[in-house]
Amino acid sequence: MVSEKMYELGSKRSVIRELFEFGKKRAEEVGAENVYDFSIGNPNVPAPEAVKKAILEILEEENPVDIHSYTSAQGDLKVRNTLAEDINKRFGTKFDGNNLYMTVGAAASIHICFSALADKGDEFITFAPYFPEYRCFVEAAGGKLVVVPAKIQDFQIDFGEFEKRLNEKTKAVIVNTPNNPSGVVYTEETIIKLTEILKAKSKEYNHPIYLISDEPYREIAYDVEVPYLTKYYDNTFVCYSYSKSLSLPGERIGYIVVPSEMEEAKKVYAAVCGAGRALGYVCAPSLFQKVVAKCIGVTADIEIYKKNRDLLYDGLIKLGYKCVKPEGAFYLFPEALEEDACAFSEKAKKYDLLLVPGDDFGCPSHVRISYCVTTEQILRALPIFKKLKEEYDK
Amino acid sequence: MVSEKMYELGSKRSVIRELFEFGKKRAEEVGAENVYDFSIGNPNVPAPEAVKKAILEILEEENPVDIHSYTSAQGDLKVRNTLAEDINKRFGTKFDGNNLYMTVGAAASIHICFSALADKGDEFITFAPYFPEYRCFVEAAGGKLVVVPAKIQDFQIDFGEFEKRLNEKTKAVIVNTPNNPSGVVYTEETIIKLTEILKAKSKEYNHPIYLISDEPYREIAYDVEVPYLTKYYDNTFVCYSYSKSLSLPGERIGYIVVPSEMEEAKKVYAAVCGAGRALGYVCAPSLFQKVVAKCIGVTADIEIYKKNRDLLYDGLIKLGYKCVKPEGAFYLFPEALEEDACAFSEKAKKYDLLLVPGDDFGCPSHVRISYCVTTEQILRALPIFKKLKEEYDK
Repeated sequence: MVSEKMYELGSKRSVIRELFEFGKKRAEEVGAENVYDFSIGNPNVPAPEAVKKAILEILEEENPVDIHSYTSAQGDLKVRNTLAEDINKRFGTKFDGNNLYMTVGAAASIHICFSALADKGDEFITFAPYFPEYRCFVEAAGGKLVVVPAKIQDFQIDFGEFEKRLNEKTKAVIVNTPNNPSGVVYTEETIIKLTEILKAKSKEYNHPIYLISDEPYREIAYDVEVPYLTKYYDNTFVCYSYSKSLSLPGERIGYIVVPSEMEEAKKVYAAVCGAGRALGYVCAPSLFQKVVAKCIGVTADIEIYKKNRDLLYDGLIKLGYKCVKPEGAFYLFPEALEEDACAFSEKAKKYDLLLVPGDDFGCPSHVRISYCVTTEQILRALPIFKKLKEEYDK
Repeated sequence: MVSEKMYELGSKRSVIRELFEFGKKRAEEVGAENVYDFSIGNPNVPAPEAVKKAILEILEEENPVDIHSYTSAQGDLKVRNTLAEDINKRFGTKFDGNNLYMTVGAAASIHICFSALADKGDEFITFAPYFPEYRCFVEAAGGKLVVVPAKIQDFQIDFGEFEKRLNEKTKAVIVNTPNNPSGVVYTEETIIKLTEILKAKSKEYNHPIYLISDEPYREIAYDVEVPYLTKYYDNTFVCYSYSKSLSLPGERIGYIVVPSEMEEAKKVYAAVCGAGRALGYVCAPSLFQKVVAKCIGVTADIEIYKKNRDLLYDGLIKLGYKCVKPEGAFYLFPEALEEDACAFSEKAKKYDLLLVPGDDFGCPSHVRISYCVTTEQILRALPIFKKLKEEYDK
């Protein structure tokens, strides 16, 4: 009666969600102070005061009908111009409002790009470890997700494996840097090599292979520059969201950049508008369009994440865990202490230590630790990580 | 390179949008006081004060991290319980929060229902005049939209034409009452006859034919009851939005009701969750979920629309126009003064009077007049409607 595919998508509980629910149950049973929940990637830092100030200003100063009315489908032009100007100032690009399309958050941004591009059978390549919803969106758009195995030494790109998977049907390549779940930022060297291959292969196949940069974690990077990809490759979509940078995950606000340098940029932009329309996106939430334009240059307090990263990374390394040092986002992605990360996660669970096995991220030898938690939880958890390690060392 | 279908959807400008842009241009040339723009269905009444009050209370009183954080994908359970309770009180239903799924507005609500239900080739029936985006969403979901011609005497349902179009492939029937563009509310008699046919045909075909009630205009009804459809037919989805009732079109907030009485209700609800996920909807905007729960029983000032309806309807009838009296929404849908509504609309445009031809609504003999405008504009426009009528009477 209903679509079996949608039923399956809606009834299969994610491992992350199961762990999270388990954690809540255990907190009731043994007390929250005895549970170490690192399952969910939900910012634990509040939105900056500037957000509240912006909302209050808008409510006081703007025309009451305009505040909550429809903007154009692609978003308020004044807002888009303001955001474009800020990007230009920061990254030396040359965008204006007409290069931006406001979206209902990061999931909408990437899904709209997939739908704008996909003809039936088109292939979209991504690199493990990767965000599991890519598969769901690519398939809903009629495409096929192709995964390049992880280069677990440093979570940069295994170019040999990548080139093996490129072919005539490759429509686009998706990167996520800083990465969920590894926290790794692609180096400029990686980006240059990647885009050189894309240029050569686009020429060989006589059609552009697009690059989709999924970057909700751009602002959460420690002591490194995150290269701005349109500067390396013309056919790049930038998919941005304010979920993490302003701690507004529930407000669903972000944007797509379609640079003018892209081949047939106007046609591509129209396809983005069409995909947004086909998916039922009428416009991005109007109050928060205006809010983000008033919060230029502001982020939530990112120092907390850095402090957590240092504490947890240093602690785990000292205990003998193996982990690539993350330079961004709020995840650590260490190797499991046995081959099967699911079994390892189950063992950790016995200590009420909740770690997400890497299977859904395409990297079943590792576990994800979300450190967007209180520093106090990390301090409490380190002795538990120690116990767990000792169990394996026996 | 891009998807041709998405390019077409994104590049074809709607007639409504063209008229609206023409109106703005003309306002610059001849002065806004000489332009009579009835093209756009955008509420011109501000959100009620209760909305602002709710936002301020939430910002002052709630935990700063919770305000903007992800809710569960189906929406905050406390919010859903509050809304369910209000529906029960008003309509004698027996819902709880688990029957509701919060959505990113009306377009999301109906698209999610189509996607949750559609298998390839399934037919979805609607009645002219109908909201043009139905076609776009049904086709994106893999279904086919089947249109029952309008019963232009009263814009109720032509049951003979309806029954001709029912068949084994019919998955669902979509109604929109109060209706955009006719403003007509289906009578209880219409609803009873419709649901009796659906019951008989579901039995005959041995599978449920679902009823999807698209009702963003429920609260905008004058002196009539709008029947609550789950009370007449178990297999009914209710798709609601706060765009019109609270004048929040840009905030994208609404819900779907899946009643427990529906066959395999739990499976259907899971398919709704799956469809939301597949379309890239992570959760409905979190601040406005909380806002609508605080605005129970409140609407924007609907009296203004009623005053406009009376003035314009009485005025046009007196001038000799033919029009079914609308009992809801904020549209009038009179017969064009010549057979071809497009030609009629063009003639009206010469007077800077902007009326939308009914072609896209599946009713090419009529024009839509959106009276969500100032009363002053209606007073200014009546002499122009008179001139236009006189031109045809010559």
